[in-house]
Amino acid sequence: MKKYIGVDLGGTNIRAAIVQEDGQILSMKKSESHPDRGAEAVMETMISLIESLEGFEECEGIGMGIPGPIDTINGKIIVSTNLPKLIGFPIAEYIENHFHKPTYMDNDVKVAALGEAVLGGGKGYPIVYYVTISTGIGGALVIDKKVISGQNGHAGEIGNICIDRNRKKYNILNVGAVENEASGTAVTRKGKEVFGEDKIRHAGDVFDLARSGDEKALKIVDDMAYDLAMMFSAIAHVIDPHVFVVGGGVMKGKDVFFDKMEKYYRDMIHAGMQSVVFKQAELEEPGIVGAAMLPMTHA
Amino acid sequence: MKKYIGVDLGGTNIRAAIVQEDGQILSMKKSESHPDRGAEAVMETMISLIESLEGFEECEGIGMGIPGPIDTINGKIIVSTNLPKLIGFPIAEYIENHFHKPTYMDNDVKVAALGEAVLGGGKGYPIVYYVTISTGIGGALVIDKKVISGQNGHAGEIGNICIDRNRKKYNILNVGAVENEASGTAVTRKGKEVFGEDKIRHAGDVFDLARSGDEKALKIVDDMAYDLAMMFSAIAHVIDPHVFVVGGGVMKGKDVFFDKMEKYYRDMIHAGMQSVVFKQAELEEPGIVGAAMLPMTHA
Repeated sequence: MKKYIGVDLGGTNIRAAIVQEDGQILSMKKSESHPDRGAEAVMETMISLIESLEGFEECEGIGMGIPGPIDTINGKIIVSTNLPKLIGFPIAEYIENHFHKPTYMDNDVKVAALGEAVLGGGKGYPIVYYVTISTGIGGALVIDKKVISGQNGHAGEIGNICIDRNRKKYNILNVGAVENEASGTAVTRKGKEVFGEDKIRHAGDVFDLARSGDEKALKIVDDMAYDLAMMFSAIAHVIDPHVFVVGGGVMKGKDVFFDKMEKYYRDMIHAGMQSVVFKQAELEEPGIVGAAMLPMTHA
Repeated sequence: MKKYIGVDLGGTNIRAAIVQEDGQILSMKKSESHPDRGAEAVMETMISLIESLEGFEECEGIGMGIPGPIDTINGKIIVSTNLPKLIGFPIAEYIENHFHKPTYMDNDVKVAALGEAVLGGGKGYPIVYYVTISTGIGGALVIDKKVISGQNGHAGEIGNICIDRNRKKYNILNVGAVENEASGTAVTRKGKEVFGEDKIRHAGDVFDLARSGDEKALKIVDDMAYDLAMMFSAIAHVIDPHVFVVGGGVMKGKDVFFDKMEKYYRDMIHAGMQSVVFKQAELEEPGIVGAAMLPMTHA
């Protein structure tokens, strides 16, 4: 079975792994990234880390997931808050020149979506829309095992979709942006407004209250479910995917809100579109596995 | 320059043309389709029509645009109100067996979108979202010269996107479906409500009143512009296209509503997405040209 190297390059750590084409991680190691030391120092750390993995020489290629907008054609970081000294540095070229293996890089969320689409919840489906509901709400479109990033890499910025024009403006996002109304942050905010600052630490506390039958918590959850259904139905009418793969920390409350959401959603789409399915994200390490998929799906 | 045969098969007429790869129509002919006579009779009419076009033998392939949902893999009509006797008939195979040329078929709106994407307003752009604002509102996604139809052929059913949950329910579409609020039909309805049944025959009458400075007509147009901006911004956050190509009869009122729409739209999308452009549909015969593009883009 073919093997690939997947790298997760973050502001704190670099993690590298050898991943089989079926998604199994054979070995994984971690180093601190120390981005303050400059691009070449980070590159040398990454190279040492990869070379410490047994069997790295037999891998077919290298893929890297990196936060922020990525120039995937030239293999460079465009903008970064965590890795400012690496902006514009020819990362992919540097690594490819060292290992003489095809090397690709992309945004970490898109790479995780690719992992989930190809080997996780979206396995076997041609058109996958990946949605993560967490602190924020984001997504990615994967068609035939390729991430469609859009003109500016903003395909999947679905957190900014307005699901109700009669809401409050909170931040730079649109009035009624679904991220401000149905993310973990939003549920936490609504919970604090209703139950008080000290009662609610995170969205899970609201979900717990809903599980115990609290009417006010159930109302927050019902609103969230409807708002998410508005977002999912907008996506569906634009692209009609085979599957939505849904991940992110808020899915820990799946039992509380997801069936309601799906019921609202199915009322908002055409009869002929009902064959769409929802799958939960499945991979433990979608970022590392997805990064390793970059050379595999480019081949 | 290579040549292709494009066919527009409708319930009333069949039109066939020889189209150059640059989109120029070299010759076009028309017959009545008489779908009541059955599938084989319609096929023989189509064959005679194609054979009456000078130089058909030198064409590289044949493409057909047909109303309703199409099984593009097997070249059959799935559902049809205008061509019921042709449902399930192996149209593409029948034509291909006769001419011994690669033959493809797809839905007529998607085929028109392909024509506009490849040779019209979207020429040269990798990701094109085609939007038609007419009696209804529809769309199609074209990536790298291929129509992305979605799981059920419903990608582009954007008329059903809810742009305001506080509107009236009119029909099977969602409450606040943009088609019920910003199509030609919707503008006509709103005009009749405000100015009376006899004053308004179609959307153009509302646009004329707006051009003359009528406050109530300007309000209808302003609402329409905002509602359309909501729809365009939802699409943009899902796919981040390079270009929106906008066609349909309502674009005759472009001077009245389009600049307002674009201004609202640009306030609803991220700073990094502003490079998206709007182009008006350009082709006189997008359906015929797009049909001819089917064998060209499959090659």
